[in-house]
Amino acid sequence: MSQVTDMGQATDAPLLSEAAFIAGFHAIGEERYHHKHPFHVLMHEGKLTRGHFQAWALNRYYYQSRIPIKDAAILARSEDPAFRLAWRKRILDHDGDGVKPGGIEKWLRLVEATGLSRDQALLGEGILPATRYAVQAYVDFVSTRSHLEAVASSLTEMFSKKLITLRMDRLRQYYPWLSSGLDYFTGRLTQAPEDADFALNWVVQHARTREDQDKSHAALRAKCDILWAQLDALYFAYVQPAWPPPGAFRPSAEALSA
Amino acid sequence: MSQVTDMGQATDAPLLSEAAFIAGFHAIGEERYHHKHPFHVLMHEGKLTRGHFQAWALNRYYYQSRIPIKDAAILARSEDPAFRLAWRKRILDHDGDGVKPGGIEKWLRLVEATGLSRDQALLGEGILPATRYAVQAYVDFVSTRSHLEAVASSLTEMFSKKLITLRMDRLRQYYPWLSSGLDYFTGRLTQAPEDADFALNWVVQHARTREDQDKSHAALRAKCDILWAQLDALYFAYVQPAWPPPGAFRPSAEALSA
Repeated sequence: MSQVTDMGQATDAPLLSEAAFIAGFHAIGEERYHHKHPFHVLMHEGKLTRGHFQAWALNRYYYQSRIPIKDAAILARSEDPAFRLAWRKRILDHDGDGVKPGGIEKWLRLVEATGLSRDQALLGEGILPATRYAVQAYVDFVSTRSHLEAVASSLTEMFSKKLITLRMDRLRQYYPWLSSGLDYFTGRLTQAPEDADFALNWVVQHARTREDQDKSHAALRAKCDILWAQLDALYFAYVQPAWPPPGAFRPSAEALSA
Repeated sequence: MSQVTDMGQATDAPLLSEAAFIAGFHAIGEERYHHKHPFHVLMHEGKLTRGHFQAWALNRYYYQSRIPIKDAAILARSEDPAFRLAWRKRILDHDGDGVKPGGIEKWLRLVEATGLSRDQALLGEGILPATRYAVQAYVDFVSTRSHLEAVASSLTEMFSKKLITLRMDRLRQYYPWLSSGLDYFTGRLTQAPEDADFALNWVVQHARTREDQDKSHAALRAKCDILWAQLDALYFAYVQPAWPPPGAFRPSAEALSA
């Protein structure tokens, strides 16, 4: 029986082995995950200025602030209490427990370490429109695609530990003035791999046809696109030549040069 | 009585006169409409290559293809047959009447004039993810905001005749190989001003409070952001240094240089 891929083409391709299915995710990460984005390359080479970090922290705060909303949308799609229990951890990780700070609060401390006020992030003033569009595309994706695709789109977390490890090393080396803002990354070093392990196992168990497998791979590609597009917009707006759109945050001349 | 603007701040500002309200739209256009975008500046200076036009035509085809969907969403919000009758014209303009080609068919001819196949546009292969996000943000905006804001977001058409007039002049001057693809713009020279006149009159009549007026201005700003973000993404992906995201259309070396 032929199946239809997300590109609309019929396929009679056979079911992938578990190993080949998982290898497919790794190949997508190698090609599309944002570890290779020019903005990150500059960051890791010590070539970003404080103004660049301000723009990055401010815009990515918007992404961080929508993560629990995205995860609640995924949680809301499941009729399985065990799935919901596992997924609920993600909301706790980001929102905190009312005593210990969660990821969103930690990201606000990173914003402050760049020299911006937390209020600027909370109000969302000057965020690039493209950031909003990409983040909304992520929330829409997990809300409207299948439960399987929604979970598969989270699998960028398979690749985040390696990126965060490198990033923390380079941030400490090149940007010591940011050191008070790194708690978010410390937390993610353990949270992200736990979450990725659960999600990958779940996807492997629930992708029962080749069509499911292809859609799972496509969901990871779509998520990589969403992350990449946010860095494209940052680079275009803030790195030479910098063309922030009308109304967007503009770093001070001082912040841009140091 | 204080009102709340779309920025969440209370205002006791007085109702604007009709002239001041309309002048506000013009001021927004002057600041934010995409006539000033670096991509258009290069286009009008004769500095784009065929590869750039391919990327522009391909990506903007996706925008064009969603215009009747956007207009149907606006039409669906009105309980007034007279409004719906006027707005239906827009769907006809883009989809055609089954005999004469509409704007979408004309845009496909522009795609072909750049040397790409119409199928590539129809399939949407290689469209920048950021294009999809921005266009979806437009459809979402008119579907979820008030009817007034949805109509006000169309008012970029107040500024399009001037841009299209300049564009046609410069396209003929610098890119004569595109001449078989200009019918779309010829049609828009009369359609857009008619549509803008109707929409502006409707907005002026239906914005009864200062809050309505402020929200109408904000809607036009939001629409300008959506257009601008599409050109940001094109410029970043295809103009020097060109960094198309993984999976996006890549012009041939020949098309990029001529």
